[in-house]
Amino acid sequence: MTIWYQSELQVKTPGRSAIDISAVIDDAVNGASVTTGLAHVFLKHTSASLMLCENADATVLTDMETILKRLAPDADAEYRHDYEGDDDMAAHVRSVLTTNDVTLPVSRGRLNLGTWQGLFLYEHRYASHSRQLIVTVSGK
Amino acid sequence: MTIWYQSELQVKTPGRSAIDISAVIDDAVNGASVTTGLAHVFLKHTSASLMLCENADATVLTDMETILKRLAPDADAEYRHDYEGDDDMAAHVRSVLTTNDVTLPVSRGRLNLGTWQGLFLYEHRYASHSRQLIVTVSGK
Amino acid sequence: MTIWYQSELQVKTPGRSAIDISAVIDDAVNGASVTTGLAHVFLKHTSASLMLCENADATVLTDMETILKRLAPDADAEYRHDYEGDDDMAAHVRSVLTTNDVTLPVSRGRLNLGTWQGLFLYEHRYASHSRQLIVTVSGK
Repeated sequence: MTIWYQSELQVKTPGRSAIDISAVIDDAVNGASVTTGLAHVFLKHTSASLMLCENADATVLTDMETILKRLAPDADAEYRHDYEGDDDMAAHVRSVLTTNDVTLPVSRGRLNLGTWQGLFLYEHRYASHSRQLIVTVSGK
Repeated sequence: MTIWYQSELQVKTPGRSAIDISAVIDDAVNGASVTTGLAHVFLKHTSASLMLCENADATVLTDMETILKRLAPDADAEYRHDYEGDDDMAAHVRSVLTTNDVTLPVSRGRLNLGTWQGLFLYEHRYASHSRQLIVTVSGK
Repeated sequence: MTIWYQSELQVKTPGRSAIDISAVIDDAVNGASVTTGLAHVFLKHTSASLMLCENADATVLTDMETILKRLAPDADAEYRHDYEGDDDMAAHVRSVLTTNDVTLPVSRGRLNLGTWQGLFLYEHRYASHSRQLIVTVSGK
């Protein structure tokens, strides 16, 4: 008998930063009562994203910012899409370079992540936003 | 009772550009008769890719091109793989920096995307190509 | 009747390089006895990653290295996270720019990849490591 569980979550962000949401997703997995299967996490936005990343040392997130700012600069002189400010187009590029959908294994009723692996919601806009996630858990 | 539906789609591209295929995938979801579940989209190529991106303002795609050309330049002097032209290796890198497999939530029988979120097939070669997609819809 | 099959695999890497693991995943698919469905591959690390890439010409992997070294330089002067050496933070960024979870279609009992498409485990650290994968195959 396969279980299909789906829920919608809201996460409030404080502006540009990466927030560890692993525990929130693990709670959804618990609620689904799936022992073996998959948890799919989807972020319904194009200026924030998801990222699997090291979860132990905060300087990893600092350095990730350093690199993303180089690859997708704020207020780039060549951007045409800048209606919402210096961070507008940069946020779209940063989202594409990371991801908006992640699927994680569920084993023995829990998310089966590596020891130093966290799932982050990465807000790319300067301002605080409310971000919507759809979590779909399936399995047996 | 879990439904497993799989279909193969061909998309003709006009050469380098991003094409919104959200409606095509939503049609496949309709055909699958899944109410709650997931739609998996897979592109069977390494010089074209998939991308979730803002779908309302065409300049977002223009700016995405600007950045991808910087990150994965055409005809880079260091490339060794250039048998098929200036866009050959660049296309492979651009595919890796975006993605070739995307999973989307299905809710109430439809793709559950954000308001400004579209799924694009991104052709990275200069020339027109016929690209093959496998869509797998599962759920209840 | 939906099948849910999950197995854990170890892959020993020789240090920084990309290893084609398509055949290993196809073996897991065979073991699952799924005819139509999906194979999810998850790498439980943040300094190695997965990549779908051209599998025929080795110079593609050489050129991918060239570009990744530019985008995520080793020993970058701005990195704060460097406890484990010059490749430490670069490995985390390279993992984020590629991916750690891939879902592949299963058709007629086999992985349904493109002709020139391979799934690679990309070791980003200089030293040899043992890397852990969770493969989850579901379908009918």
